[in-house]
Amino acid sequence: MKLGIYGYGNVGKGVEYACAQNKDVELVGIFTRRDKNEVKSQLGNKVYSVSELKDFKDKIDILIICGGSATELPTMTVDLAKDFNVIDTFDTHANIPTHFKNVDKSAKDSGHIAMISCGWDPGMFSLNRLYANALLPTGVDYTFWGKGISQGHSDAIRRIKGVIDAKQYTVPVKEVVDRILKGETPELSTRQKHLRECYVVVEEGADKEKIAEEIKNMPNYFADYDTTVNFISKEELIEKHSGMPHAGFVIRTGTTGKEGEHKHTISYNLKLDSNPEFTAMATVAFARALYKEKLNGTVGCLTVFDIRPRDLIDMSYEELLKHML
Amino acid sequence: MKLGIYGYGNVGKGVEYACAQNKDVELVGIFTRRDKNEVKSQLGNKVYSVSELKDFKDKIDILIICGGSATELPTMTVDLAKDFNVIDTFDTHANIPTHFKNVDKSAKDSGHIAMISCGWDPGMFSLNRLYANALLPTGVDYTFWGKGISQGHSDAIRRIKGVIDAKQYTVPVKEVVDRILKGETPELSTRQKHLRECYVVVEEGADKEKIAEEIKNMPNYFADYDTTVNFISKEELIEKHSGMPHAGFVIRTGTTGKEGEHKHTISYNLKLDSNPEFTAMATVAFARALYKEKLNGTVGCLTVFDIRPRDLIDMSYEELLKHML
Repeated sequence: MKLGIYGYGNVGKGVEYACAQNKDVELVGIFTRRDKNEVKSQLGNKVYSVSELKDFKDKIDILIICGGSATELPTMTVDLAKDFNVIDTFDTHANIPTHFKNVDKSAKDSGHIAMISCGWDPGMFSLNRLYANALLPTGVDYTFWGKGISQGHSDAIRRIKGVIDAKQYTVPVKEVVDRILKGETPELSTRQKHLRECYVVVEEGADKEKIAEEIKNMPNYFADYDTTVNFISKEELIEKHSGMPHAGFVIRTGTTGKEGEHKHTISYNLKLDSNPEFTAMATVAFARALYKEKLNGTVGCLTVFDIRPRDLIDMSYEELLKHML
Repeated sequence: MKLGIYGYGNVGKGVEYACAQNKDVELVGIFTRRDKNEVKSQLGNKVYSVSELKDFKDKIDILIICGGSATELPTMTVDLAKDFNVIDTFDTHANIPTHFKNVDKSAKDSGHIAMISCGWDPGMFSLNRLYANALLPTGVDYTFWGKGISQGHSDAIRRIKGVIDAKQYTVPVKEVVDRILKGETPELSTRQKHLRECYVVVEEGADKEKIAEEIKNMPNYFADYDTTVNFISKEELIEKHSGMPHAGFVIRTGTTGKEGEHKHTISYNLKLDSNPEFTAMATVAFARALYKEKLNGTVGCLTVFDIRPRDLIDMSYEELLKHML
């Protein structure tokens, strides 16, 4: 299976490491929108300019697109699906149906296969929501994110006047998660589910009190949450908050029996040292399945919901029956 | 989708309740090996003798076989697959490859579709092992069972002279589970992973000390574990230990990055008030997917690894994109 990487940011680097861990994968090259001479592969792979991509139409089985969901992927995946079999990590949940429709049309018109929204949420969390709902049709769903860095919230703080840099952690309220894991099914407000912890570096002489208030009252991002703001030095931010950890829970509690007298709780939990690298591992596993679908002649856009689990892993069916089932 | 239930024990009753919870399912009937006049459906469904099953060859889409793994299913599923599309809950892990081969041949020879080993382990736990291994090829797997009743171990105690009845709980060692959920990857002996708690009712005048020793030293079942034996009255056994709860964890910790410097922990946890009813819910969800495969013309034996998640749920793809992805 020959893969290409389009975009060499955190996820792109993660895909490069993932290719090295998966023995059935050959990484054809990394394609960058920057000056290719200024981009150095972490593992000595070839770096090309995206303008060279047209020469690789028949040399890449699946192109993994590592772009931003907000502004890049909505057009990038649609365009690249005209010439390649593609997979992306589009994660703006509300816009998934539209993105799916656009990518599906592009892929079908050109006879390619595509997958959108691969990763952990959307991705593995979505699969767990589906499995749990399929098995327990009568029940209540919960998703908790964190503790982990939210890129969007960190960016929102950085746009405030006087702020040099910032990191925002989304933190699930532990007591609430524990209650739900024990089978309780409370109705929860946004504020009851997650806290927001901010680490902020400001310019000398900045009005910290004013900045803290501006953060805490920011609509959509912080106003509906209990938010703590910590002002720290640039050095401390780099030393203690440079990682990209994330975590989360998908929980469903449902009932069965003659009169719903039996309760069941299904929970799926991730604890990730590196959000982008885990996302990258998922894209490579699903690229493997997509490649098999391509060999079957499938065209159009798929999601994680379409993939037979057996196609994700580099292991024979006999081995799966023996060691995994 | 028209389902039939073959065998009306705990799982069979659970399937009956599951059919009532799933609106796209029609339960054609319950087929019993006992005198059908002595078997009463919990929900007023029709009860037939298994000898009448031959009249239902074209009236049942999928027959859910609720028999015992140890002695019944190895021949039962193979035989029934000659005339029906079938699904079973075969759970003797070591014999899965052989059972698969036998059922696959029977189903292929007669042009039917079959699924073996549906439930939670094998079943949902197997799926989680596969997904976690596909995403994190470099890592360590753990499976813990309990706290829950082990039927096999309870039966083993009941065979001891002087024992009237018994229930055995398999209990994971909490401290060890917690360490692993935090990302530690210890090598563990059997004794370090699970405890065994026994509740035993004995005949009047029985030698309790001798019976306790016999339990604790029973090879394969108890000798490798820390086992506690509690002698209680028949009334207390009925009052406190009549339920069929179970639980468990599938955990994988793996590494990613340039030099494996980032650690990730994936865990899946079930807490079930009723082991047979949850197993039954799984069989009905997978029967739905099997029915779709049948409409596609698939024949032979499948497992949970072959099933596209989207086929498990009674929801349109548009709804899945909008609400689950």
